[in-house]
Amino acid sequence: MDISHIEHIGIAVPSLEEAIPFYENMLGLKCFAIEEVEDQKVKTAFFKVGQTKIELLEGTSPDSAISKFIEKNGGRGGIQHVAFAIEDGVANALAEVEAKGGKLIDKAPRKGAEGLNIAFLHPKSTCGTLIELCEDPNK
Amino acid sequence: MDISHIEHIGIAVPSLEEAIPFYENMLGLKCFAIEEVEDQKVKTAFFKVGQTKIELLEGTSPDSAISKFIEKNGGRGGIQHVAFAIEDGVANALAEVEAKGGKLIDKAPRKGAEGLNIAFLHPKSTCGTLIELCEDPNK
Repeated sequence: MDISHIEHIGIAVPSLEEAIPFYENMLGLKCFAIEEVEDQKVKTAFFKVGQTKIELLEGTSPDSAISKFIEKNGGRGGIQHVAFAIEDGVANALAEVEAKGGKLIDKAPRKGAEGLNIAFLHPKSTCGTLIELCEDPNK
Repeated sequence: MDISHIEHIGIAVPSLEEAIPFYENMLGLKCFAIEEVEDQKVKTAFFKVGQTKIELLEGTSPDSAISKFIEKNGGRGGIQHVAFAIEDGVANALAEVEAKGGKLIDKAPRKGAEGLNIAFLHPKSTCGTLIELCEDPNK
């Protein structure tokens, strides 16, 4: 698998309305997009920091992965996942992980925010961290 | 505050010995340094991914912040903090955060891994995420 950079970091927040002003006013970053991903039951806000995006995530339903993460975390937000940009294709990378005995959440790439092809590895085989692999199909 | 990029992501792991082979063999990344930071009671392993480093952290004492993070997380690892590279000085950035009503863990920069000047913001004023600010004093 050929990882070029960290595409984004996914940060769960209880409220985008509270979190966006912190990232803009305190850290001086600029929110460049807000998007709802119905499939994942989240609303997202994006910031660019060098090569990497920060993706703030607010759950839109109590059964979204983000709402569950926050509930487990005592009602507080925190960093939920890290996403690597894959140069030689997410499908290839998933096949490689499986062949090496790793566990997958997504057996095949699916559409994520910003039109990327994405897939998650299972934290059971990543020493606990939720890892996303992604590729830009227009690149 | 002038943030140029994400300097590193701090990932807590129960065991470096188990985690390093995952990052090397499964993700194809290369560990370029292992360092013990006595002050913070951690052993760290570094990987470079584009502009950003991944810093795996194993606690060397049950009262280290990393060991407590893992205990609270049901014995599993996870992403513990994100560190921003500050171009106009960590001391300036801390003063700015305080002036805007933010809470600090470190009132002044201190030495972290790799000889960087670092300071942590308090998660109470960052919507839950542990945020580190850092600068390279040799730059």
